[in-house]
Amino acid sequence: MSEFELLKTIKEPSDIKQMPFERLQELCQEIRAAIINRVSKGGGHLGPNLGIVETAVALHYVFDSPKDKIIWDVSHQCYPHKMLTGRAQGFYDDTFFKNISGFTAPEESKHDIFTIGHTSTSVSLAYGLAKARDYQNEKENIIAVIGDGSLSGGEAFEGLDNAGDLKTNFIVVINDNEMSIAENHGGLYGNLQELRKSKGQYADNYFKTLGFDYTYVEDGNDLKTMIETFKKIKDINHPIVVHVHTLKGKGYRPAEQEKEKFHWCQPFDVKSGKILGTTTTEDYGYYIAQYLENRVKTDPKLVVINAATPTALQLKEFRADHPERYIDVGIAEEHAIATASGLAKGGMRPVALFFGGFIQRAYDQLSQDLSMNKSPAVIIIEGTGISGGDITHLGIFDIALMSNIPGLVCLAPSTKDEALRMLDWALEQRDFPVVIRTPWKAPESLKYAPTSPIKLNKSEITHKGEKIAILGLGSFLSLAEKTAELLKTKGIDATIVDPRFTSTVDIELLHGLTKDHNKFIVLEDGCVAGGYGSKVASLLSPYGVKVYSFGASREFTNRVPLKDLYERYNLTPEQIVQKVL
Amino acid sequence: MSEFELLKTIKEPSDIKQMPFERLQELCQEIRAAIINRVSKGGGHLGPNLGIVETAVALHYVFDSPKDKIIWDVSHQCYPHKMLTGRAQGFYDDTFFKNISGFTAPEESKHDIFTIGHTSTSVSLAYGLAKARDYQNEKENIIAVIGDGSLSGGEAFEGLDNAGDLKTNFIVVINDNEMSIAENHGGLYGNLQELRKSKGQYADNYFKTLGFDYTYVEDGNDLKTMIETFKKIKDINHPIVVHVHTLKGKGYRPAEQEKEKFHWCQPFDVKSGKILGTTTTEDYGYYIAQYLENRVKTDPKLVVINAATPTALQLKEFRADHPERYIDVGIAEEHAIATASGLAKGGMRPVALFFGGFIQRAYDQLSQDLSMNKSPAVIIIEGTGISGGDITHLGIFDIALMSNIPGLVCLAPSTKDEALRMLDWALEQRDFPVVIRTPWKAPESLKYAPTSPIKLNKSEITHKGEKIAILGLGSFLSLAEKTAELLKTKGIDATIVDPRFTSTVDIELLHGLTKDHNKFIVLEDGCVAGGYGSKVASLLSPYGVKVYSFGASREFTNRVPLKDLYERYNLTPEQIVQKVL
Repeated sequence: MSEFELLKTIKEPSDIKQMPFERLQELCQEIRAAIINRVSKGGGHLGPNLGIVETAVALHYVFDSPKDKIIWDVSHQCYPHKMLTGRAQGFYDDTFFKNISGFTAPEESKHDIFTIGHTSTSVSLAYGLAKARDYQNEKENIIAVIGDGSLSGGEAFEGLDNAGDLKTNFIVVINDNEMSIAENHGGLYGNLQELRKSKGQYADNYFKTLGFDYTYVEDGNDLKTMIETFKKIKDINHPIVVHVHTLKGKGYRPAEQEKEKFHWCQPFDVKSGKILGTTTTEDYGYYIAQYLENRVKTDPKLVVINAATPTALQLKEFRADHPERYIDVGIAEEHAIATASGLAKGGMRPVALFFGGFIQRAYDQLSQDLSMNKSPAVIIIEGTGISGGDITHLGIFDIALMSNIPGLVCLAPSTKDEALRMLDWALEQRDFPVVIRTPWKAPESLKYAPTSPIKLNKSEITHKGEKIAILGLGSFLSLAEKTAELLKTKGIDATIVDPRFTSTVDIELLHGLTKDHNKFIVLEDGCVAGGYGSKVASLLSPYGVKVYSFGASREFTNRVPLKDLYERYNLTPEQIVQKVL
Repeated sequence: MSEFELLKTIKEPSDIKQMPFERLQELCQEIRAAIINRVSKGGGHLGPNLGIVETAVALHYVFDSPKDKIIWDVSHQCYPHKMLTGRAQGFYDDTFFKNISGFTAPEESKHDIFTIGHTSTSVSLAYGLAKARDYQNEKENIIAVIGDGSLSGGEAFEGLDNAGDLKTNFIVVINDNEMSIAENHGGLYGNLQELRKSKGQYADNYFKTLGFDYTYVEDGNDLKTMIETFKKIKDINHPIVVHVHTLKGKGYRPAEQEKEKFHWCQPFDVKSGKILGTTTTEDYGYYIAQYLENRVKTDPKLVVINAATPTALQLKEFRADHPERYIDVGIAEEHAIATASGLAKGGMRPVALFFGGFIQRAYDQLSQDLSMNKSPAVIIIEGTGISGGDITHLGIFDIALMSNIPGLVCLAPSTKDEALRMLDWALEQRDFPVVIRTPWKAPESLKYAPTSPIKLNKSEITHKGEKIAILGLGSFLSLAEKTAELLKTKGIDATIVDPRFTSTVDIELLHGLTKDHNKFIVLEDGCVAGGYGSKVASLLSPYGVKVYSFGASREFTNRVPLKDLYERYNLTPEQIVQKVL
């Protein structure tokens, strides 16, 4: 591993400050090799990190972290920063991958100020730090590094709008790689393009309109220029935007050429650039994309909306085949929901798709713009459920977030067929907005699959027994079956219920069951707090039956293996039965 | 009432299309008089409506609503629009005030496309309508009217950013009255100022950077200019911003002079401009403002943050006395929360105050930027609880919104003293963010007031009885007492509990009570779905006791009298006792 010779010597950013320029250049190459080493073997964000190597090296060469504070937006481009702050082994040494996360993490290093995983937050967070600095008469530099894709998020605008008004040091580095996660969308990207074309001289300058000083760097992958640029603005006494033009995927040809594919990717063969393993799983995302592909051919009203994540949502084929029915609003979830409401009011049938927790940005829009207005849009949330994922990317809060909003009808399918029936049902009515949440994993086969037509707020009993009723929400209907099987060995023939709706309890059905059931088990693949089980408990408690709610605890977990989480939350059939009997 | 002669003749916007210009000018005066008539007697939004009279008349004179669609941002400036669309009686005739709301309402008129009450949504909603129009090959004009105060909200930026990219008709009217709700803040307002000073010629133009064509109107209260301007751009084939400079409060001298006071106001004496009734109530907002005033004198770390609502939050005195410790971020709730997180991480003690449902904009920031980062900021939500207010301004969803976020410690005080103890406690610790929700109304006096020190996640038994325990969250502790009194007449000495924390159930205390209590009543001044009662039910149900949750239903209500709502939700002591016994 002599190839990572320099990297191995770096424990702190101060270790690079005396390096001659040639060494720094070699260091950039080692960092690139380490990024490719880790991502090709374990997956991760490739393109964003390859593009920002020189920016990161120059930042740490010129500024003095952690006194000077660098905030990495989204933080999926923090790999070079991590390597420069004592965590290089997590990239060059395969056995250390798991010790270092792919996002900034204060518990890993004092150089990471915040845990960040959602986009467009860096400027506002940095603004708070800058105000704190000024109040305490300190003098350090505050630097927000934000990728241009993140500029389309409203929070980034709010941050820039306020920060442009500061009278003290504030540095925003715009990493402009001509891309969002997908291609750039929206008017602002036209402005960035004009600024690039004119080498920063274009008359109407977005950043200047918000009060910022401005400087443009044509080749952000030229280390010398980057160092000189940062040296010039270090300790500047007012807000400045450094607009840095970089090449996403720089230094790895396949990633330079296929920017979207290599934004985040599974392990790949370095030589050929071929993604290893199967790229298409027959999961819910796949089935939903197929459904939309089919439906658009006969439904002239269907429009698909998404917020910059076509790859994760498997919408690239739809985008290619039906570009006129596909709206990518960029990273702008608030706008996406309001747009869906407008389209629905205007007579179209919008389907807006989001990935997991990213919908959190749009609670107010889901409530006011959409549900209060009874706009019949369909919202699909993919990648939900308990997972071993990163703390910032958990998919367990959407039930509490959405199912308590008046007028928003929320469903969780338990099988592929049910998911497709739900889509049909949601798209045929014009009375209310509908949310369908689908889990990460592919549907499992069920012994007792639900078969009845979807009816508003009606659950289905898939197996009728007695004494104990098990409600298995969405993908947890299979866990309900497994629990019922275990109960059978103990002489209890439990009833199994597919609740279908997460937003409303089918009280008629459940009340009927209270006649010959005195225990109700609710299993939900999400957080118990504010979730479906708590609704069931509220409604059934006055009847004198016992309700046992199982699901995730109200906590943020960070890359805890799924199996451990299931055990922690008593989500194995054995634990469930033990708790209840 | 001959003064409203013209207004009485208008049933549809078409009724003004043949009016000679002089009549239109008289109409503007009648509209002004009607606005003043209604607001001086019943309260409401005065300044915004007085300023936009000519814009509204010109819009309806030139465009053809409802074929052409006008979307009013925030919609608190829709009074002139309402008068021009058949609802003038709701303004000139005192007995009709209650029939017409102060916001756009599709159930009132086909000229109101959306129910709108939160800011910054109009452009995105209009964008959806524009896309729907284009898909269906229609040709109508789509017009978003947005006050400049709303431009600071991220959703407005996201909308403009996407709309600037349209290749078809799209008109944004910027009502620039040099004000937000409070004074304008943020870098963008500097740009608007430059544009005003240069009569629209300033080199860096925010709207142009986002792809818009642009035109400036120096005197937006000149009807002739407004009509000419709109005639020129009617049926335009691309997105344009019409930047209209108006005078907030135009035509009523006191409102022109004291813009903030008359933005929204209680009934007032027209002659003197004096607000009628007491302006200061000794409610929670008052006590909190006093607390902050006192604390800032000895706490060098305290910073107060608010998002453009200093009047509603009674912070104007604080702002005047301690401008250096007061940050108004403008209408930008996402940024406000991230800023609070940054300030807390940077060593300060930020207190961010919000009004009721406006905090909804910041769910993701509360979760990711704040709670996940364990930033010890204090968030105060005022004006919560069940109310007879407008559908867009309900304060009943905050418990479900916030109390289910991991790591966010949420409290509801039941007395003034407890509120102040909570503030002390929240500001003394550095481990987690704290939310304190306070109700509209002033604290009531209690027979059994809580007295013990605040301890994390600990409730207090204020009266120990047996059989039935009543948990009265926040302001509903007084309802708990009243219910206990009624139970006493039936021979039951009920236990009364002040839960204090809405985010975590004190299971130790409640479990203890299960020994001699088999019924638990939970009263919460908010929506039951996702709320505190559902947490109690979930946790206690397995113990075989009955939990009865009382609070608001999962529904949007619109100006339903509070007394009716209490009865609808079984929130009178008589109803509660009847349900439980």
